[in-house]
Amino acid sequence: MASNWTHLVRFISEEDGQTHLGQVDSSKYPDVGLSILNGEKVQVKVVEGSVFDGKLLSPVGMDNVPIIRCLGLNYMDHAKEANMPIPDVPVLFIKPRTAVNGPHPAKINIPKFVQDGTSDYESELSFVLSKSGRDIPESEATDYVLGFTCSNDVSARTQQFKNSQWSFSKGLDGSCPLGPVLVSPSAIGDAHNLRIKGIHNGSVVQDSNTREMIFSVAKTIAFLSQGTTLEKGTVIMTGTGPGIGAMRNPKIVLNDGDDMRVEIEKIGTLVNKVYYE
Amino acid sequence: MASNWTHLVRFISEEDGQTHLGQVDSSKYPDVGLSILNGEKVQVKVVEGSVFDGKLLSPVGMDNVPIIRCLGLNYMDHAKEANMPIPDVPVLFIKPRTAVNGPHPAKINIPKFVQDGTSDYESELSFVLSKSGRDIPESEATDYVLGFTCSNDVSARTQQFKNSQWSFSKGLDGSCPLGPVLVSPSAIGDAHNLRIKGIHNGSVVQDSNTREMIFSVAKTIAFLSQGTTLEKGTVIMTGTGPGIGAMRNPKIVLNDGDDMRVEIEKIGTLVNKVYYE
Repeated sequence: MASNWTHLVRFISEEDGQTHLGQVDSSKYPDVGLSILNGEKVQVKVVEGSVFDGKLLSPVGMDNVPIIRCLGLNYMDHAKEANMPIPDVPVLFIKPRTAVNGPHPAKINIPKFVQDGTSDYESELSFVLSKSGRDIPESEATDYVLGFTCSNDVSARTQQFKNSQWSFSKGLDGSCPLGPVLVSPSAIGDAHNLRIKGIHNGSVVQDSNTREMIFSVAKTIAFLSQGTTLEKGTVIMTGTGPGIGAMRNPKIVLNDGDDMRVEIEKIGTLVNKVYYE
Repeated sequence: MASNWTHLVRFISEEDGQTHLGQVDSSKYPDVGLSILNGEKVQVKVVEGSVFDGKLLSPVGMDNVPIIRCLGLNYMDHAKEANMPIPDVPVLFIKPRTAVNGPHPAKINIPKFVQDGTSDYESELSFVLSKSGRDIPESEATDYVLGFTCSNDVSARTQQFKNSQWSFSKGLDGSCPLGPVLVSPSAIGDAHNLRIKGIHNGSVVQDSNTREMIFSVAKTIAFLSQGTTLEKGTVIMTGTGPGIGAMRNPKIVLNDGDDMRVEIEKIGTLVNKVYYE
């Protein structure tokens, strides 16, 4: 991969039907997710292969993601909303790589057994590791970040609330939409000063800032790598802010045909339609 | 892989330094883990490559294990011991593939930050999936089982008890010793009538039977595959019986140099020494 990229997309070219990586000119297309949704033809500087005139994919594919490590309760404002104590340590649960999903036109598929009025969204900043490491000092941790992207920690709340552990309810196929753009750390600057919103059918339902994160990106990497090899390509989800569907009054549910978006400053918008299988 | 194997080991041959698979004659060597420990030269019918005169490995290697899915609280007698209600659904947590560890001479490595007097064992029956599947009916579930083996769900209790989620405290490198033999379903027969013991420095500290399992192998596969692709090579740990170190009086801890064994009827003994890094 070219080392001087800043805004990377992965896509299937209509020209040759193959998967390619491309660099987006962010001054021309500040929000690729919305450009594509609006039918705009996005020109990219091709990092590999062909020109872009096709279907956007997650910026990292399932075959390159060994695992997805996710933090729960990592936003100060969300912990307050949930009336939960501020955690002393990062609360880690794991999604399998089969949860990796793309941006629109990929859908959030809700299987029949969880079409019980409790499918929910969680808008999150995620990052991808550029190399493997263990016992990484906090001072070196950001050297391991390949880039940042938008993500949605799709959750089946009925299953979640009847189980002390969250890996099943948050680990269904496609429960981790990612993308569309992977933005390099240099283009992001301070990762802890980004406005982050969840938008459900056009209404802003989550509106926080990554400065509310209890454990920073560097602290998270340092903590999770204790005695543990974090493999290259690992996706780390950093937790969600307040406003999840289950804690609203009235509650919000992801219903068939809904439009769900995660919008993060300097990255853009991850759009997904919801599909009841 | 030959389809008529019943007792499979994976090993590094001293002859050529390569990794091979071999079929053990179980009438001659009923417990390969102990034979090796006693310095016995085990002859195997080689499935791939060379003759066996070397180092035993886990029967499936990290590169062929996409993920380890683990059940908590799945033994009736353990749930009673822990004074916990019988769970309505399988309690699923995930270990990363970097947790895969082998039998002796591989060690249970305890990193410095958890050398706090709370490293613990959990003796468990595990099985490996032979093919990928989703929404697998309970009636077809056992077709997905490649074989059964011994395993140890090594746990850092201090970390576990300060975190609602268990993936960090049970996900350290090497926290899932497996092996040494993978026994085919045909050679096991009824997987829910096997005596299972944990043996710490020669003392039997866990002694239960797989009939105490709350969710059977078939029910576990059917439940976990709902809306979720279980990938080929996945290891599923089925939970532990009573007698874990943290719940004993006095408590038992895995200390440097300890000898820890998991012995399961019809499979054999998984032996590991404990090593404080």
